[in-house]
Amino acid sequence: MSAGSALPGKPVDNARLARHFKMDKVWEQWVDHFIGTRTRHLARDLDTGEQQASLTDLAADAASVALTAAGIAPAEVDFMVMGTATPDMLMPATVNMVAERLGINDVPTYQLQSGCSGAVQALDVAYHLILTGRYQTALVIGGDTTAKHFDPAMSISSMPPPQLVNLLLFGDGAGALVLRSGGRAGGRAVLHRVFTRLTGLGREPGQTLEWYGLADRHSGRPPAAEEYKAIEESVPVMTAEIMRELLEDLKWEKSDFDFILPPQLSGRMTPAIVDGLGVPGAEEISCVVDTGNTGNALPFIQVEHALTEMAPGDRALGLAVESSKWIKAGFAFERI
Amino acid sequence: MSAGSALPGKPVDNARLARHFKMDKVWEQWVDHFIGTRTRHLARDLDTGEQQASLTDLAADAASVALTAAGIAPAEVDFMVMGTATPDMLMPATVNMVAERLGINDVPTYQLQSGCSGAVQALDVAYHLILTGRYQTALVIGGDTTAKHFDPAMSISSMPPPQLVNLLLFGDGAGALVLRSGGRAGGRAVLHRVFTRLTGLGREPGQTLEWYGLADRHSGRPPAAEEYKAIEESVPVMTAEIMRELLEDLKWEKSDFDFILPPQLSGRMTPAIVDGLGVPGAEEISCVVDTGNTGNALPFIQVEHALTEMAPGDRALGLAVESSKWIKAGFAFERI
Repeated sequence: MSAGSALPGKPVDNARLARHFKMDKVWEQWVDHFIGTRTRHLARDLDTGEQQASLTDLAADAASVALTAAGIAPAEVDFMVMGTATPDMLMPATVNMVAERLGINDVPTYQLQSGCSGAVQALDVAYHLILTGRYQTALVIGGDTTAKHFDPAMSISSMPPPQLVNLLLFGDGAGALVLRSGGRAGGRAVLHRVFTRLTGLGREPGQTLEWYGLADRHSGRPPAAEEYKAIEESVPVMTAEIMRELLEDLKWEKSDFDFILPPQLSGRMTPAIVDGLGVPGAEEISCVVDTGNTGNALPFIQVEHALTEMAPGDRALGLAVESSKWIKAGFAFERI
Repeated sequence: MSAGSALPGKPVDNARLARHFKMDKVWEQWVDHFIGTRTRHLARDLDTGEQQASLTDLAADAASVALTAAGIAPAEVDFMVMGTATPDMLMPATVNMVAERLGINDVPTYQLQSGCSGAVQALDVAYHLILTGRYQTALVIGGDTTAKHFDPAMSISSMPPPQLVNLLLFGDGAGALVLRSGGRAGGRAVLHRVFTRLTGLGREPGQTLEWYGLADRHSGRPPAAEEYKAIEESVPVMTAEIMRELLEDLKWEKSDFDFILPPQLSGRMTPAIVDGLGVPGAEEISCVVDTGNTGNALPFIQVEHALTEMAPGDRALGLAVESSKWIKAGFAFERI
């Protein structure tokens, strides 16, 4: 597999957010300390409110980078799978607009509606479709633009904490992988395992994201909410369980892998999660401090970073949790 | 495979719509004649504007019917795939709320964002995952509630035709299939083929469906639009191409199948499409006159009807077209 990514515009730091929302230095320090995310990229211009990039734009850019890295032409792609929580429109699905941009046609195109584990779900579907022997080359994309929920004109001083946290945690972006069947040239890594699994039975959603249609767009319902405490409690536990399950399945020990790609909740939470895993020998690949939580883009942005750090033979584990309805997701790959 | 479906509330006829929107008898006759859809079921109460059923409600009901028909307990389901254009929320994905309702857990759950071919896309993914040999039993769901776009308080006398057509064409509902690997007991039909393929390169979308986030929910953009002429021109041609491709792939002649499940655009268009296929020996299974276009639910509602009509050994073709970005979708099955 080979990877690529795309982020819109210049990084927006906490000082810039504080200026924009007319908040003081204490607030900025609070964000630095309690969120720990220093910058994020936004698809909407803070000054003008204008959309700078659509999810289609970002996904097509990330896909182009991944295709180039793989040495694959768009015409060689046998099918596409995309994961996102925030499509540009409900119809057409964004994956089809990305296909249009890349000149891809006459192939199956799937778009998964999913939270932060969606990129791994997309990889999971792609992996299994290739496993049937009917396809050779998959273009797998993950991305999100929460820009639709980010109203530059809103006042945040009176915003309830769950909404404020959402505003500060997230960033926009896209990542892509090209996955080929065994023995195909051009890949930079081999995918050993991938799994995703719902584990939310009887548990309240940790995160909700609404959309509005014509009938209810004037309702006062908040568009997004996080049960931050539930997430803070559950994600480290679930991450350790995902790692344990992957290792058992692979018959690997904790010393048998060299890199770890942990969930990217925030600049503050991610180091705590990694500490709890007890794998001091594995190098952490994280990007959340710079990109914010880019949702479905994150795992592939991490893979792209990892591939530049890994030497041939190095092994990595990717771990992701979707807190909306508590989905576990993991994958393992090896640099070649 | 075995099938089930669910429709909300009582059928709403054109006279009821005319009364509600204060339109006259001429308008009602116009709908009867030019749309040809006599009734549809709506997830929102016309009088009170209240939501009567969520997509989760309908999908869980349809899934329960299909599981009962298959003699399968929820705990036997190895994975779920759902197709919809109109999820209840962006997160959690509706498929996970359906799993909650059915008591399904610890399995992969996928939700495809897609238009009228989405049910076939979901079936396609399920079919290929089973083909890997790693799974035995799939619960496949398709459903849509366009209720979010249906504002009972809106005035339709000045509504532009593309929006009006949308309002009149669509209905709410869900359908479900249980798909098992070869040799498993309980199935009522064998799936011979399924395919979906994007064919929209360079073509304008035939249909768009918007959603609103916090930032743009007060924009005046219409939520849904149809290029009705493009659809009327393209869908019959594409349907014939899908049939030809399926038959070639199966090495079947036009006389080798007994039932046909055509696209369910409207009560007026569907008979014209079937006439153009030139298969007088095949019995048509349609529901659009009674249900309206229920999007991702339709193919499975048709399968459910077909299974009650077919005798062992009878063969059927299912044909679906997504006009948002022109996706071809087809499947073939045989009653056992």
